[in-house]
Amino acid sequence: MKNFTDNNRAVVRVPGTSANCGPGFDCLGVATTIYNYLDLTLLRSNKFVVDSSGEGADKIPRGKRNLTWQAVHRLLQEVGREDEFKGAIIRTKNNVPLSRGLGSSSTAIVAGLTAANEILGSPLDKNGLLKLATEIEGHPDNVAPAIFGGFTVSIMNQGEVQTFSFMPRIKLKLIVTVPDFELSTRLARKVLPKNVSMKDAIFNISRASMLVAALVKGNEKLLPFAFDDALHQPYRKKLVPGMTEVFDAAKSAGALGAAISGAGSCLIAFTTAQSHLEEKIASAMVAAFKAHDVKSKALILNVDGRGAQILKR
Amino acid sequence: MKNFTDNNRAVVRVPGTSANCGPGFDCLGVATTIYNYLDLTLLRSNKFVVDSSGEGADKIPRGKRNLTWQAVHRLLQEVGREDEFKGAIIRTKNNVPLSRGLGSSSTAIVAGLTAANEILGSPLDKNGLLKLATEIEGHPDNVAPAIFGGFTVSIMNQGEVQTFSFMPRIKLKLIVTVPDFELSTRLARKVLPKNVSMKDAIFNISRASMLVAALVKGNEKLLPFAFDDALHQPYRKKLVPGMTEVFDAAKSAGALGAAISGAGSCLIAFTTAQSHLEEKIASAMVAAFKAHDVKSKALILNVDGRGAQILKR
Repeated sequence: MKNFTDNNRAVVRVPGTSANCGPGFDCLGVATTIYNYLDLTLLRSNKFVVDSSGEGADKIPRGKRNLTWQAVHRLLQEVGREDEFKGAIIRTKNNVPLSRGLGSSSTAIVAGLTAANEILGSPLDKNGLLKLATEIEGHPDNVAPAIFGGFTVSIMNQGEVQTFSFMPRIKLKLIVTVPDFELSTRLARKVLPKNVSMKDAIFNISRASMLVAALVKGNEKLLPFAFDDALHQPYRKKLVPGMTEVFDAAKSAGALGAAISGAGSCLIAFTTAQSHLEEKIASAMVAAFKAHDVKSKALILNVDGRGAQILKR
Repeated sequence: MKNFTDNNRAVVRVPGTSANCGPGFDCLGVATTIYNYLDLTLLRSNKFVVDSSGEGADKIPRGKRNLTWQAVHRLLQEVGREDEFKGAIIRTKNNVPLSRGLGSSSTAIVAGLTAANEILGSPLDKNGLLKLATEIEGHPDNVAPAIFGGFTVSIMNQGEVQTFSFMPRIKLKLIVTVPDFELSTRLARKVLPKNVSMKDAIFNISRASMLVAALVKGNEKLLPFAFDDALHQPYRKKLVPGMTEVFDAAKSAGALGAAISGAGSCLIAFTTAQSHLEEKIASAMVAAFKAHDVKSKALILNVDGRGAQILKR
């Protein structure tokens, strides 16, 4: 039997995610094996506690502006139970770096929604959670892989989100270099033009389509050109010193391709697990960053195939 | 034993194709079960005969401007045998309507290349043929499915073409309405803007990616939004009277989606074979065209999975 203090409590794990994957601007994403954890207890009283440890713990709001609470509260509203639960104990342990393009805000949102939904008896399915998460985050590219795992393709259709998730037929290694500076998504969006050339649009359409086809079918030979982008990275490279050189270093070391992770500042390279090149690629990327006076650390990750998971109930 | 007149002769069959498939502008294509036939004999003499029957027979050039000959000659050059064969007997039987967006010029090119390659002992593989065909046609979206069959994703990388072809996991029916007017690709390209909004580019990137994922994986539920386009059809609708209404009629009759076939004038709708809605969709599309004073006929086709085939050698 559960202890009475375990009522209205759930512990969840949510993967950090990398959006865009090069050509799939605002639509592709991938879940990775770096995780944030949330231990949530819903309270009938107005009491409110936030206790964070790990990455960016000192920057996480402790009041009701807290993003996890925003998500919990949105779900309570959605299912008409916001009068029942006025407070919460929110304990988080974070491994995903903040404001680096690894979807840390999405983990907070998805963790809050998933945990609260579980406590309330799962009134929403994953698509229901996706809808709310997209509404809170403003776009689906990180919340979709955080919920479903794997690679995700998302489309927005008249405000409604649709997502397809799949595990690639090739076992990939993801090499993420985390530079020692943050980059706000707002700034990274501000440098983008409103209009682009038809040629560049076609460049990305064809590569995003090829990337999805090659990953789903497991055709490694088609990947080397499939991670390239013409729509956002050329404008963002001024925000990430050494970007092009880090990409080149990754490819020279054997990576299939490299891209900005989400809106940056992390850069991500892709290789096959069987190539065993991940350490070499990681060193090459960190060295290339260093040549531009950027200190960075490398994370070697796999594709997470599960998405948000309930660990304890 | 072959008759001596059968020396240097090959008969090939090449499928008509539909490029773009909605969002995959200049990169997606699909081979269909409507075919053009070529009976080619290479001659050492300078004699040159073109004998055409079927669709557009009276419009096909009988001199060396003939597109099939251009392709044959280009292949002869490529393999250094243009001095050996100076003439040809080109006999064609065409079912693919001309200048309607079903890749009739690509069938002529691919047929010429495939037949000549066969006669010469296959010096080139399919990728070699694709390279030449793309060079002659200017873009890969029709020649790729004509060569490989199935759906194709093509990218151009510094002038080099790469194509991936796959058969969808869902059995599709293609409903093609052929209006009684031609549309030149040149004109259809001229109405397109040089620049497009980032929003529209993302619209197509996400839908083309979703289309490929849903077709490869056989996920029918994700197809209804995946055939939509924001990059070329809105500009081309003035060239095809009733376009939007024909699309709406197809969808109301149960189609998963509808699009301009290539640069038009044909419109193509997609449905599953198991829905048995193809006749209903065809009638609805023809009726919607008629309401705009456009006479049309409907073709109900399948996806061709084989591409260009040698029928006789």
